[in-house]
Amino acid sequence: MHQGIATVSLSGRLVDKLPAIAAAGFDGLELFDNDLIASALTPQEVAARCADLGLSIDLFQPVRDVEGVAPDRFAAVEHRFRAKLAVMGQLGATTVLCCSNALPDAVDDADLSAEQLHRLGDLAAEAGITIAYEALAWGRHVHRVGQAWDLVQRADHPAVTLAVDTFHLLSRGDGPQALAGVPGERIGFLQVADAPVLEMGLLEWSRHHRCFPGQGALDVAGVVAAVLEAGYRGPLSLEVFSDLVREAAPAVTARDAKRSLVFLEDQLTARLPATCPAREVVTLAPPAPARVDPAFVELAASPGADVERLLEALGFVAAGRHRSKPVTLWRNGAAHVVLSPAPPQAQATGGVTAIGLVAPPVHSVAQRAEALLWPTVQTTRAHGEAVLPGLGAPSGLHVLLSDRPGEPDHWRGDFEDLPPGGTGGQEAGGAHGAGWVGLDHLAVAVAPDLLLQEVSFHRTLLGLEPGPTEEFFEPHGRLRSRALRPAAGTLRLVLNAPETAAGAPRRRGVTQLAYAVPDVRAQAVRLRENGVPLMPVPDNYYTDLGARFALPDDDLADLRAHGLLYDRDTNGGELLHLYTAVLATGFHVELLERRGGYAGYGGASTHVRLAAQA
Amino acid sequence: MHQGIATVSLSGRLVDKLPAIAAAGFDGLELFDNDLIASALTPQEVAARCADLGLSIDLFQPVRDVEGVAPDRFAAVEHRFRAKLAVMGQLGATTVLCCSNALPDAVDDADLSAEQLHRLGDLAAEAGITIAYEALAWGRHVHRVGQAWDLVQRADHPAVTLAVDTFHLLSRGDGPQALAGVPGERIGFLQVADAPVLEMGLLEWSRHHRCFPGQGALDVAGVVAAVLEAGYRGPLSLEVFSDLVREAAPAVTARDAKRSLVFLEDQLTARLPATCPAREVVTLAPPAPARVDPAFVELAASPGADVERLLEALGFVAAGRHRSKPVTLWRNGAAHVVLSPAPPQAQATGGVTAIGLVAPPVHSVAQRAEALLWPTVQTTRAHGEAVLPGLGAPSGLHVLLSDRPGEPDHWRGDFEDLPPGGTGGQEAGGAHGAGWVGLDHLAVAVAPDLLLQEVSFHRTLLGLEPGPTEEFFEPHGRLRSRALRPAAGTLRLVLNAPETAAGAPRRRGVTQLAYAVPDVRAQAVRLRENGVPLMPVPDNYYTDLGARFALPDDDLADLRAHGLLYDRDTNGGELLHLYTAVLATGFHVELLERRGGYAGYGGASTHVRLAAQA
Repeated sequence: MHQGIATVSLSGRLVDKLPAIAAAGFDGLELFDNDLIASALTPQEVAARCADLGLSIDLFQPVRDVEGVAPDRFAAVEHRFRAKLAVMGQLGATTVLCCSNALPDAVDDADLSAEQLHRLGDLAAEAGITIAYEALAWGRHVHRVGQAWDLVQRADHPAVTLAVDTFHLLSRGDGPQALAGVPGERIGFLQVADAPVLEMGLLEWSRHHRCFPGQGALDVAGVVAAVLEAGYRGPLSLEVFSDLVREAAPAVTARDAKRSLVFLEDQLTARLPATCPAREVVTLAPPAPARVDPAFVELAASPGADVERLLEALGFVAAGRHRSKPVTLWRNGAAHVVLSPAPPQAQATGGVTAIGLVAPPVHSVAQRAEALLWPTVQTTRAHGEAVLPGLGAPSGLHVLLSDRPGEPDHWRGDFEDLPPGGTGGQEAGGAHGAGWVGLDHLAVAVAPDLLLQEVSFHRTLLGLEPGPTEEFFEPHGRLRSRALRPAAGTLRLVLNAPETAAGAPRRRGVTQLAYAVPDVRAQAVRLRENGVPLMPVPDNYYTDLGARFALPDDDLADLRAHGLLYDRDTNGGELLHLYTAVLATGFHVELLERRGGYAGYGGASTHVRLAAQA
Repeated sequence: MHQGIATVSLSGRLVDKLPAIAAAGFDGLELFDNDLIASALTPQEVAARCADLGLSIDLFQPVRDVEGVAPDRFAAVEHRFRAKLAVMGQLGATTVLCCSNALPDAVDDADLSAEQLHRLGDLAAEAGITIAYEALAWGRHVHRVGQAWDLVQRADHPAVTLAVDTFHLLSRGDGPQALAGVPGERIGFLQVADAPVLEMGLLEWSRHHRCFPGQGALDVAGVVAAVLEAGYRGPLSLEVFSDLVREAAPAVTARDAKRSLVFLEDQLTARLPATCPAREVVTLAPPAPARVDPAFVELAASPGADVERLLEALGFVAAGRHRSKPVTLWRNGAAHVVLSPAPPQAQATGGVTAIGLVAPPVHSVAQRAEALLWPTVQTTRAHGEAVLPGLGAPSGLHVLLSDRPGEPDHWRGDFEDLPPGGTGGQEAGGAHGAGWVGLDHLAVAVAPDLLLQEVSFHRTLLGLEPGPTEEFFEPHGRLRSRALRPAAGTLRLVLNAPETAAGAPRRRGVTQLAYAVPDVRAQAVRLRENGVPLMPVPDNYYTDLGARFALPDDDLADLRAHGLLYDRDTNGGELLHLYTAVLATGFHVELLERRGGYAGYGGASTHVRLAAQA
């Protein structure tokens, strides 16, 4: 499809926005009037720049408050509209966005509004221009797409068409069905934006919290599919504004934006009926993995931390040596750690430089990443070694894709086994029971302005589904958190965006490695014996636990004696867990036992952990 | 009154909060349960620390979801409540805050809730403790103070009283009259918080945007006055949480908080009937000034900027020399600038180090500042010179208070007149008409986390009334802006909080000096002649102006020729204005003509200025 973006979606001056839009590969743009007004470029110069950059000016926007105007003031609207049509003539733009009247004195009279739209249609037609009329979600009387379509029909003018904006439509609680019966040739423009579901005023929500498709929670694809089914074949154009985007560099935003349209088109095929002719115009990306399971984490053997000794103390044993690199494989039961020489970015990612995921088929998923513009990471390999495509997440974390165990491109095949007990500490599963069950989840901390991008990475590329945003308070700020899981597979990822005081220490990258263990009490004993520093749990925590759960005294005393945290869900599922202190590697380790289907992350005690770590 | 604050209102760990609360001069505190749970201090140790610091523990809070509970689950509530009563015994606290049930499964049955409150009242009474029951604004069924009072009456237990929280009460649209008929002895606790009026969900509003009295827009004083009139004589206790406070240092917040209670008490006297006995327990601060007028701005003669040459180019003449300091007075008509040697903080305040205000009686206003804990600034003076109390605003700007012209402490008396034309450029009011009319307004930029404090400074100390928050978008972020004016007097102050990308340049302190002039066209000519760099106005701006206002072609051409900006309000009032470029002093100068009662600041063209200055 012809892909565009509104200049208001990017920060900077108009002169900076145009090349950024072109560089990201867009076909066209919507020119925001205020961007033009504040620019030293004449309309003709803007038109020439766009032409040079291969960008069409798909829309001039907006002209506000054009209908529902008291008749004695309509002459001023005509004057204003004519002046903007003249500017559009200089720009060579042929579609103008007109918004429903949002002024307090707007007149609630559909016949009057239709008559005024018809009159503006005459003016537009004389200039060879088409009006796309949009219901602003906060319009005074016209605020739903059905009302706008009613007015467009009443206006009954070939130059007056309907504008569909996914945010305005969906934020009012309408869905794709609101477009039933609207013929595609009467839809003059399609603007797309996503947003998280927030309980706030529509104007505030729209101005500060829009985001790109794939970053929010609205059914953008459903509305776009309905517009295409109706026969619309015009531009697919983004109009997103938010506090985050306003502060981001235009080139970064433009790339994010382009990526979101690739993802949106990819989603559309699934939303369009098999016989819909629109399927031919949308592009399908290579498929997301069928399932996603954690394989290993890669740690940097940074000089400052004796990582080998730490791994031994945690109960890992050296189990393999890479065939061609100075890399060793450590194992504790089914938990795997790959220890590599420290790369320059080790500090930024808190000791964990990469996570390995079994996400077959790896070739196709790597191609999907490329189609979605996610950057790839160089992973050199020798003859006969597995292909492990590497992808750079916005957090800086590297995601390495592995094939299924047993397949040629499974990561495990790159390691030669070491003899048991030959290097490293005692074999896991010795005196203290079996080895670990495996990686339960990873927590990744990102800067607040990267959270949407990080969510988008995992969602668009790997098909992980983000849960709701949770919020925790910590001594020096707050933490927004979203857990992600795949439709199939055992990966659990928790993305955290801490917003803390300027001076407070900030951990970024993987901050927590959480492993499932068969007996967390036994592990608590073992870690203490091995000298691993554990997070101290305040005595008051156990008093509160006793108040909340009415645990038998013996059980409470046992939790206290072992320094374990506890949670119980409404179905009786239980979580027993402990945290190490923050280790020299920058992360802490959580060991946990989930019982009876407990699916959460122990959020009720998160404030205790955050206080202990502050 | 006995003044307190909830520990949840401060950032940090409990162990850091207690001394911060004591140092700010509070009498007591509300202990937030989660603060205790996460603390390594035992309840007894907390009690001992508070005693050492001279702080009473006025409230333990909160115990949630205690009523409206399905009968088969009430035993768990009793268990939980008993456990918390035991903790309170160790703390020596005798009032507990219980909140209305906010769980989705809360039972809507007033008889059941009353019966459960009565039962909890029995348990509390056994422990010598009183329940203060609060209607959370987002309670499932009980969310207004009238409902809570109804339940307290139905519970009919001496140990079950009503908690009043100004935020919960006011955010639901109730006012002081909601407390009509509630006897003061049945009010067990009073929590106070202010907030700006925001269109968002109550929980989000409460958690992220509460502020201290005097910083928001709720009628906090009205509710507190009603509670005192009813006969309540317990603590006046702050419970404020917001993203800003969470990131601020606890000592800073505690001082802000204490100040807000001083201000609140000061307001109360005016709200209480003359015969109300409560007037005796509230403290009245020395009065705010009767009127506030601008007197002068003080510029730093920083070595990097040839300020004298700039002043001459702007049409100022050297008009006076300070009797005892190396300070000169410059004048353009009725606009006055005091030029002083650059102090160390000159850079931080963008060239303007102080503003002088005529705000009589200066002695009393200075005492008011002291009572409100606003820091004073040393202003040395010689014998016979005026007393100019100096106050440090949160922005870093110094505010110097002067007496009325002609009075002994008027600032002008400290200067000896210089002979006309003796120093400096040509006399203002020469070839280009009369000198300037005077200072119209000042724009002061503060960091976003200081905006509330800065508003509070001018509001609580000088009695300026803040207007609504306006928002403007600029190329690298956004700008929140509030204009303040006194009830009497001509001072206009615009406080701006720019939120821009990390790398974008940031101006702080006085960024704009706006002067009223008799003929802005003549001034435009003069400034150009004198080589003062003016802000370029894009040609597209005039095209848009023509579209919006249907100005006669000649008028539009004249504005364009002079490089003037224009605005018109709905009553036909007009603003003609121009901006200089940002000068070497860090600020820009605006010259303006207000016609026909125009009272705004030309906000419609602010985006053009911000783009030109980016």
